[in-house]
Amino acid sequence: MNYAEVLHQIHDELRPIIGQGKVASYIPELAKVAAGQFGMAVVGIDGSVVTVGDAHVPFSIQSISKLFTLVMALRLEGDGVWERVGREPSGTPFNSLVQLEAESGRPRNPFINPGALVLTDILCTRYATPENAVVEFLRPLCGNKHMHYNRAVAASERRTSHRNAAMAHLIKSFGNLNNSVDEVLDAYCRHCAIEMNCVELARAVTFLADGGRHPDGGEEILSASRAKRLNALMLTCGTYDAAGDFAFRVGLPAKSGVGGGIVAVMPGECGICVWSPALEPSGNSLAGSLALEKFTTLTGRSIF
Amino acid sequence: MNYAEVLHQIHDELRPIIGQGKVASYIPELAKVAAGQFGMAVVGIDGSVVTVGDAHVPFSIQSISKLFTLVMALRLEGDGVWERVGREPSGTPFNSLVQLEAESGRPRNPFINPGALVLTDILCTRYATPENAVVEFLRPLCGNKHMHYNRAVAASERRTSHRNAAMAHLIKSFGNLNNSVDEVLDAYCRHCAIEMNCVELARAVTFLADGGRHPDGGEEILSASRAKRLNALMLTCGTYDAAGDFAFRVGLPAKSGVGGGIVAVMPGECGICVWSPALEPSGNSLAGSLALEKFTTLTGRSIF
Amino acid sequence: MNYAEVLHQIHDELRPIIGQGKVASYIPELAKVAAGQFGMAVVGIDGSVVTVGDAHVPFSIQSISKLFTLVMALRLEGDGVWERVGREPSGTPFNSLVQLEAESGRPRNPFINPGALVLTDILCTRYATPENAVVEFLRPLCGNKHMHYNRAVAASERRTSHRNAAMAHLIKSFGNLNNSVDEVLDAYCRHCAIEMNCVELARAVTFLADGGRHPDGGEEILSASRAKRLNALMLTCGTYDAAGDFAFRVGLPAKSGVGGGIVAVMPGECGICVWSPALEPSGNSLAGSLALEKFTTLTGRSIF
Amino acid sequence: MNYAEVLHQIHDELRPIIGQGKVASYIPELAKVAAGQFGMAVVGIDGSVVTVGDAHVPFSIQSISKLFTLVMALRLEGDGVWERVGREPSGTPFNSLVQLEAESGRPRNPFINPGALVLTDILCTRYATPENAVVEFLRPLCGNKHMHYNRAVAASERRTSHRNAAMAHLIKSFGNLNNSVDEVLDAYCRHCAIEMNCVELARAVTFLADGGRHPDGGEEILSASRAKRLNALMLTCGTYDAAGDFAFRVGLPAKSGVGGGIVAVMPGECGICVWSPALEPSGNSLAGSLALEKFTTLTGRSIF
Repeated sequence: MNYAEVLHQIHDELRPIIGQGKVASYIPELAKVAAGQFGMAVVGIDGSVVTVGDAHVPFSIQSISKLFTLVMALRLEGDGVWERVGREPSGTPFNSLVQLEAESGRPRNPFINPGALVLTDILCTRYATPENAVVEFLRPLCGNKHMHYNRAVAASERRTSHRNAAMAHLIKSFGNLNNSVDEVLDAYCRHCAIEMNCVELARAVTFLADGGRHPDGGEEILSASRAKRLNALMLTCGTYDAAGDFAFRVGLPAKSGVGGGIVAVMPGECGICVWSPALEPSGNSLAGSLALEKFTTLTGRSIF
Repeated sequence: MNYAEVLHQIHDELRPIIGQGKVASYIPELAKVAAGQFGMAVVGIDGSVVTVGDAHVPFSIQSISKLFTLVMALRLEGDGVWERVGREPSGTPFNSLVQLEAESGRPRNPFINPGALVLTDILCTRYATPENAVVEFLRPLCGNKHMHYNRAVAASERRTSHRNAAMAHLIKSFGNLNNSVDEVLDAYCRHCAIEMNCVELARAVTFLADGGRHPDGGEEILSASRAKRLNALMLTCGTYDAAGDFAFRVGLPAKSGVGGGIVAVMPGECGICVWSPALEPSGNSLAGSLALEKFTTLTGRSIF
Repeated sequence: MNYAEVLHQIHDELRPIIGQGKVASYIPELAKVAAGQFGMAVVGIDGSVVTVGDAHVPFSIQSISKLFTLVMALRLEGDGVWERVGREPSGTPFNSLVQLEAESGRPRNPFINPGALVLTDILCTRYATPENAVVEFLRPLCGNKHMHYNRAVAASERRTSHRNAAMAHLIKSFGNLNNSVDEVLDAYCRHCAIEMNCVELARAVTFLADGGRHPDGGEEILSASRAKRLNALMLTCGTYDAAGDFAFRVGLPAKSGVGGGIVAVMPGECGICVWSPALEPSGNSLAGSLALEKFTTLTGRSIF
Repeated sequence: MNYAEVLHQIHDELRPIIGQGKVASYIPELAKVAAGQFGMAVVGIDGSVVTVGDAHVPFSIQSISKLFTLVMALRLEGDGVWERVGREPSGTPFNSLVQLEAESGRPRNPFINPGALVLTDILCTRYATPENAVVEFLRPLCGNKHMHYNRAVAASERRTSHRNAAMAHLIKSFGNLNNSVDEVLDAYCRHCAIEMNCVELARAVTFLADGGRHPDGGEEILSASRAKRLNALMLTCGTYDAAGDFAFRVGLPAKSGVGGGIVAVMPGECGICVWSPALEPSGNSLAGSLALEKFTTLTGRSIF
């Protein structure tokens, strides 16, 4: 299939709506990003790369980091991770405390903020500087050995993270956080502030399209069974409380971030990343969601 | 792949746990079913049939009927269906009223009871005897022209359906039910009481594995795009509030019923049905869920 | 204290706001009542009567009937009533189902709709025509032997009572309703449609100001201890989810109805009733609430 | 009325149950208190003092401090307080976050933890050491110029206050906290750790029985109207989520603390304090609640 043509057609069709929606404003530093940008990249499990638009412009990966912290936690703890965090869609906004309180501090899944705080706590226990561990894990995966997190964005989020602090304290009150709330929030805000571009992110998830193996060289990042299960989790929980609608419209496992990026996986074929900073109300990139919907419509490919 | 061997291996491995769990008791007539039964059938889009165990014993399809009423409603109303019912996982038990009240009488998805009541209301508007319309729609799909619903089970459920009545009245108070509560509940309890066996149910869903086309003759039941989307919806919402975990463990679109049946779809390949009456706490067949998990593990096949 | 003067001052000061707010519209028959009416009556435990405005115009007592059905249920069942209904403020709107579901069909208190449905169920078990039993209980209390319920209003409410039906079915699904939902709703809508005027209602509650004894003749309606406790319950739960604010501003036990009436009790002294049909958002009479607030401010009397 | 006799009778009748229930254990330092203690004091607005049992043993006032911080906040801000905190019973446990989230960081009332955190924030804005300001406000009221807070208890609570921290951060995320979470929590834990005995606490609330005037000398602590309204608030919200039941059984405005103390007000007559450390599940002193219930039963006095 000629992905280059598909990507150009998507870009052309979306031009009128790129920039519509709202750039995330609760992190002041992120609010400065220009809304009108759009990029998309497809990286095949054979290493082929196809791009369109601003696919080489780095952006803040934000919640997409939850995918990578989960991979790291699974490598460290195996299925022990699931004793501390669930695998069900939350059915409520990503930063809700209601469910967390009703379910005694065990987050519904690893892709909502409370879940990611627990994952970060796992990393805090194993690494002195967990944010650097995430960076080092990601560099070979994405092929950019200079990739790093943005200190200004991390500090900006840290200053306004009262809701995340509320969640972390609530989790700790239930005994499901082993490190101090401050340590966990510091590491969390930093790995959320990692900056990558579409090509790097698409490449970083190709192992999920290839049975868990590194695109270069074939090292096992996760077992094939675990990689498949991670895809399933992305499909049911990866796009906040719009996961059902996203699966319905797009039909691919995906994880989004409020920086406007969305990564998706076409099993057996490729990793995909789209980026456009303006968001729909549920927190997913508006143009990005539509781009992925067009992608599966135009190619006739999805997992279903 | 030799599905016969796979099915026999599954049956053998599951023997010690068949009958564990609890047969649904809230419908007195269903409580009489013997717990120790187990059957499984795979029907290929080429018409091939493989079975094991009690695959030819008819059972009450219960909530699996929600899948077929949705197909019928989509054929009648198209995307208009989605104005009256959502597409998101509920995150709460299948018969909860909390969400329905908070979201003004618009059910989260068509696979929880309130959603199915709205679908049934659509059928009540179009058909004089909606339950017969469902039966007639299903007979050619499943290949049994004598298939019908069980009047004793329907009456038994109708007598104990106070919670469903509460939901229907609540939906009606919000203006999202056009027919009388009694008419809707009558039709609902009857199509839930339809009886089919594993082979018939597996055959009835093969069109979802084959781009929406009838296994025999190729008539379009749903468009290819709509069939895919229905699969996506089953994956995120088809197994009550255990949908996330089910997708994680099994990795196939599926719909379960408290009669102990589960249908699943392997896109491009086959329809699957497993039946064993004893349930896990979330309302899915205990042995049935494990059988499907073993099926995707042994075959190495899933959608991810 | 010269209550006549106080009542006239209240009426004068409230003139500009009488009619502000919204007449209850969910019962079509009630929506026809002219918003600009206002009446108030004080009936002393010595039998003295002071009135102002439309104090002799009959109106629909609606939820004020909950007070009298509770008195009747207590006379029939004693403290057994509290096994089926609680004594705590609900903290949510009067017709919410959330709490009822979370608390397994045991209503929070007798003054919200679900609680009154359970009380009505108690009356349905004891009386062939429970609504007539309520009427007969009230006639000697209020001194009007022709007082009755309005059949048009009862029928109007019954036709639109889907939310109450939802609650009744939910309560029944938890086993806390012994009679059929239809019987209970019929009786409920009828005793809500009882019509009385301010003088009659004020007189009907004087026994609560006088240690439980009938104003005329001294028959014990309730024991002194039970009468006090009923006052306490009115204070904490009598005015829907505005009970805290009402106690804060007015400082008297009171029970309101969506017909615009509010009865209040000044222990050791008098029964009070105010009526004005236009409501504030929480369902209490807007002018009526203010009138009672002015009453306790001007007289310097409250229970605190 | 001979209160001495009444108090002795109460003490005698309660002996078998004193010590039943559970001493608060979530603050380790409080868990050390001996469960079998019981004291009670009545201080008349004429200055008379009647006591029984351990009425002179100091204990941790805990949430009773919320009453005094509210008085101080009202003196500082007047009705402006009510813009930041409501006046309705919460209907949920004292430390729940659900409601706080649903209602955008405005606590339901000043007597649940989130409400008291907002009050403490008001004091933090006005005083350099708000806990000392509370101590200095209370000393003349209670007649003990050496009264202070217990540093070990304050530090013990501070170390385990993750749930309070979660609430404070959540309130701050909604913009309803002006000082830092740490400052507010420090001050909060310290004024909760104030130690007083039954006589001192009963004396400290007599102004609420006497139209807002200081028992000694008649200085106005609060206006008469505001004092009455504070009593109303205590009645509807003062005893956690058991307020309805407490008003029903006891019939007096009261405020309890997990240290086992309860203060109550008999308007026009006296302040009352009872203390016994073992609690019922809702967090009120078990023997203390029963003692107050017996007090109003034996004296035939309540506000109703």
